[in-house]
Amino acid sequence: MTKSIVITGANRGIGLGLVFFFFFFRNCSRIPSRNAPKSPELQALNDPRLVIVEMDATCDDSFTNAALQVAQTVGSSGVDILISNAGVIIPVNIDAPINRKEAIKNFDVNCIATMAVTLGFKYLLKAAAKKAGHSQVVNMSSILGSVSQTWGAVAPRHFTVYSMSKAALNMYTKTLSMEWKADGIRATSIHPGWVQTDMGGEEATLTVEQSTSDMAHTIMKFGEANNGLFYDWKFEAITW
Amino acid sequence: MTKSIVITGANRGIGLGLVFFFFFFRNCSRIPSRNAPKSPELQALNDPRLVIVEMDATCDDSFTNAALQVAQTVGSSGVDILISNAGVIIPVNIDAPINRKEAIKNFDVNCIATMAVTLGFKYLLKAAAKKAGHSQVVNMSSILGSVSQTWGAVAPRHFTVYSMSKAALNMYTKTLSMEWKADGIRATSIHPGWVQTDMGGEEATLTVEQSTSDMAHTIMKFGEANNGLFYDWKFEAITW
Repeated sequence: MTKSIVITGANRGIGLGLVFFFFFFRNCSRIPSRNAPKSPELQALNDPRLVIVEMDATCDDSFTNAALQVAQTVGSSGVDILISNAGVIIPVNIDAPINRKEAIKNFDVNCIATMAVTLGFKYLLKAAAKKAGHSQVVNMSSILGSVSQTWGAVAPRHFTVYSMSKAALNMYTKTLSMEWKADGIRATSIHPGWVQTDMGGEEATLTVEQSTSDMAHTIMKFGEANNGLFYDWKFEAITW
Repeated sequence: MTKSIVITGANRGIGLGLVFFFFFFRNCSRIPSRNAPKSPELQALNDPRLVIVEMDATCDDSFTNAALQVAQTVGSSGVDILISNAGVIIPVNIDAPINRKEAIKNFDVNCIATMAVTLGFKYLLKAAAKKAGHSQVVNMSSILGSVSQTWGAVAPRHFTVYSMSKAALNMYTKTLSMEWKADGIRATSIHPGWVQTDMGGEEATLTVEQSTSDMAHTIMKFGEANNGLFYDWKFEAITW
């Protein structure tokens, strides 16, 4: 059966890599993306299975509109997989006075906007679950968001509040896995590894290709047993 | 040795209860509180060991000023224990459009303000650690902030974003326990139980007295082995 996948933040980096590798699965189609109209790389894929849709992390209406555009394409078969990949890092030094307005953006984009996007696509996830028995939310988390495994503030990069936002996102994953289970919607957090993106930096250990090719396979394997849990790109379980 | 303890949000509920029970320890002194000047119960304690200091969760300058007032009382012996107890619950229904400005307050007060308070008192925690070998940050978390143990959205009370903020606070605890260890400052999260406060509601299973008398004892027992971990009011370990 053809699967419909929505990926946010697909204009570059990990999101773009995921779009690319999902096309290796013959049964994938319709991969919209936030900000994607501005991405020449995404446009260049020029694949008829790709539908590019714009979203703005600061505007909840844009999520509703994006879901409507996707609905027009996928119809009653809905969305099988929603990958909430869009996110930011706003560095916050825990040993210096905090710019609260800036610091809070980590939570606003990585947590609250993700919640609004997920809610915006809920009826499409429900539709897919009704047809296929289940659908899947995948939240792009980080090992830094695992309280048990975190690397700390990662000086001098000041990842603390980013880590806090990813721990919060993991809680959202867990909550969804409990609250939307009756609708057939599963939710799982994934850690992409340390990836050579604008966010990960050049010294990161994985190329986008390495991370996203593994992640695409891992995500396609997610089943009932993986609902409400946390995995790395290679499908290794991560403790909260 | 006399211990100096700072408790935020001591004007009522759990914070007030902790002030009361710490006075059973002969060696406790100087317990300031946010908003405390407005609390008749706290004023009524009328104990010479109590120093009441006002803080405003929205104003970082008030944390700096509060720390200065505390510094004038404790001098070079510093603050042995900082209990960040002040917090809010702003309900957010994950199945309804999100009021982002309201939702974000869970993170702003429970996470960012707590970070700013902790930073404001850092030099006093360092001073105590220099004298006594160590000092202790205690962050008032919740079982709802444990991703592995959370109760979910707790319908119809809509605790999801509150839970997310407490998971994020736990990450802050963990980060502090790693980053401030060299300064002799420890950090530990505590779950007060489900307590009959304005926040917990009347159906809660524990009275303020039950929770805070146990918590005061538990906090006094925190040692090096408890740095960067999470406990309930009875000193039972909680997984993240």
